[in-house]
Amino acid sequence: MSVPVTLRVIGIGPGGPEHVTFAAADAMVGVDAFLFLDKGSAKQSLLDARREILDRYAPQGYRMIEIADPPRDRNPADYAAEVRRWHSARASAIEQVLLEDVGEGGVAAFLVWGDPALYDSTLRIVDDLTARGVLAPEVTVIPGVTSISALTAAHRIPLNRIGEPIHITTGRLLASTPDGASGNQVVMLDSYLTFTETADPDDEIWWGAYVGTADEILISGRVADVAEEIAETRSRARESIGWLMDVYLLRKNTRSPDLGE
Amino acid sequence: MSVPVTLRVIGIGPGGPEHVTFAAADAMVGVDAFLFLDKGSAKQSLLDARREILDRYAPQGYRMIEIADPPRDRNPADYAAEVRRWHSARASAIEQVLLEDVGEGGVAAFLVWGDPALYDSTLRIVDDLTARGVLAPEVTVIPGVTSISALTAAHRIPLNRIGEPIHITTGRLLASTPDGASGNQVVMLDSYLTFTETADPDDEIWWGAYVGTADEILISGRVADVAEEIAETRSRARESIGWLMDVYLLRKNTRSPDLGE
Ligand SMILES: C[S@@+](CC[C@H](N)C(=O)[O-])C[C@H]1O[C@@H](n2cnc3c(N)ncnc32)[C@H](O)[C@@H]1O
Ligand SMILES: C[S@@+](CC[C@H](N)C(=O)[O-])C[C@H]1O[C@@H](n2cnc3c(N)ncnc32)[C@H](O)[C@@H]1O
Repeated sequence: MSVPVTLRVIGIGPGGPEHVTFAAADAMVGVDAFLFLDKGSAKQSLLDARREILDRYAPQGYRMIEIADPPRDRNPADYAAEVRRWHSARASAIEQVLLEDVGEGGVAAFLVWGDPALYDSTLRIVDDLTARGVLAPEVTVIPGVTSISALTAAHRIPLNRIGEPIHITTGRLLASTPDGASGNQVVMLDSYLTFTETADPDDEIWWGAYVGTADEILISGRVADVAEEIAETRSRARESIGWLMDVYLLRKNTRSPDLGE
Repeated sequence: MSVPVTLRVIGIGPGGPEHVTFAAADAMVGVDAFLFLDKGSAKQSLLDARREILDRYAPQGYRMIEIADPPRDRNPADYAAEVRRWHSARASAIEQVLLEDVGEGGVAAFLVWGDPALYDSTLRIVDDLTARGVLAPEVTVIPGVTSISALTAAHRIPLNRIGEPIHITTGRLLASTPDGASGNQVVMLDSYLTFTETADPDDEIWWGAYVGTADEILISGRVADVAEEIAETRSRARESIGWLMDVYLLRKNTRSPDLGE
């Protein structure tokens, strides 16, 4: 028999507590444990941001449990097999916490940065967990404001010109966006400001770091005019704050014909 | 001298009052007038949904002003000129309301469905207004939860498989998405279920109408298996509710190689 538990996957928006929705705040009430899976240099700051959110929206008190990522071989002989092994080790670590610290009929929650559907692994982890069969999780997902919406709001711009498509991609794949999709590109997870290699000098860029938080930095303009300023601002910020999260919108300066109004 | 006014462009999420953020609720306080520009068959329902939101978050009372769209020639000799004329007439109508009903130093707000950056004309209208020079608006934009996030949360799925790009497009342009961008497509503003003409039978679809509201309807599966059910459900809903808003995610069943984990 699988053990029933409730899992709430809660989008908390781009960071500032004011961008949390009422549905998300409601879902923070009645939770036995909030589980955290962060890693990397931003870990402490991301934990602190969530603590600030919980202090505000779960003032009756809350319990946070950090689940460390199991060790992972980054250069395995069989890459796919190692990824599967690692995913399963991670699911097993979470399963154990749920069995021991949350228990049958209990409620656990994940606070996910931005929206849970966008470049986030929590929902995949929950699937791994369910597939193991030991637990029978009842899953609820609360949508959140994405860092993309926070970026465009801060710059006070629309994502697209009238009727145009929008392409969301990563630094890694930016160079492979096909021509017909590159009119409006949002780039996330880019450690290298890849646009400096792919964009035309005349493209426009709207860049933001820590958008929707107190540390927000914004730069916009023609790529040729602002690329250097962005690169410098970015390294200074990473150094002084200790970690960095940035996102940008690139727009071709040629509007595709025939999009009408 | 231009007349200073404050304009708040507030994203209210996909419809349900619980998807409003605290920043949006705060921005609803201290507003002299909420301006509405809706049109079409959904107008009354969209007005009612906003009224419900204002009743909840601006309980001290509020003033709503509906601004009718100026008449528009849909088959003009010079299309671009007619669009410019019509935009300018619309900006002028809003300008007049701001001058007469909001006044110097006043605060007006627009409640925008979903997020203001995504396929919405309010920010463009505000630009038109500012360009006229009569008013000097100070503009704030509050990001909101998109109908895309509401769709994926309701289906409890990620938008993308690990590392994959996401393409957001309209019914009108769906058929012109280039191959390399069609792995994960979100389709909005589609009056004709255009996927029935473009998708492979084996693609997967996650469809939703009125997502994030009390009327939410969800269907998902292989395109070949659910296309008919979606078409039928959709016409029934449009008939019984009187209007329809739907959005869907289409995913190719072949995963592009080399995206890593
Ligand atoms: C793992 S993804 C998570 C995205 C998140 N689920 C969302 O909806 O925005 C992390 C990437 O999101 C972007 N990001 C998230 N929060 C951000 C913020 N506050 N400011 C700038 N970029 C942010 C960055 O591109 C970062 O590399
Ligand atoms: C003019 S666009 C506005 C989009 C909005 N700004 C957003 O962020 O979702 C209207 C389109 O959004 C989608 N949409 C908006 N709200 C929706 C909802 N609650 N359920 C389903 N689709 C919705 C539909 O595709 C509709 O044709």
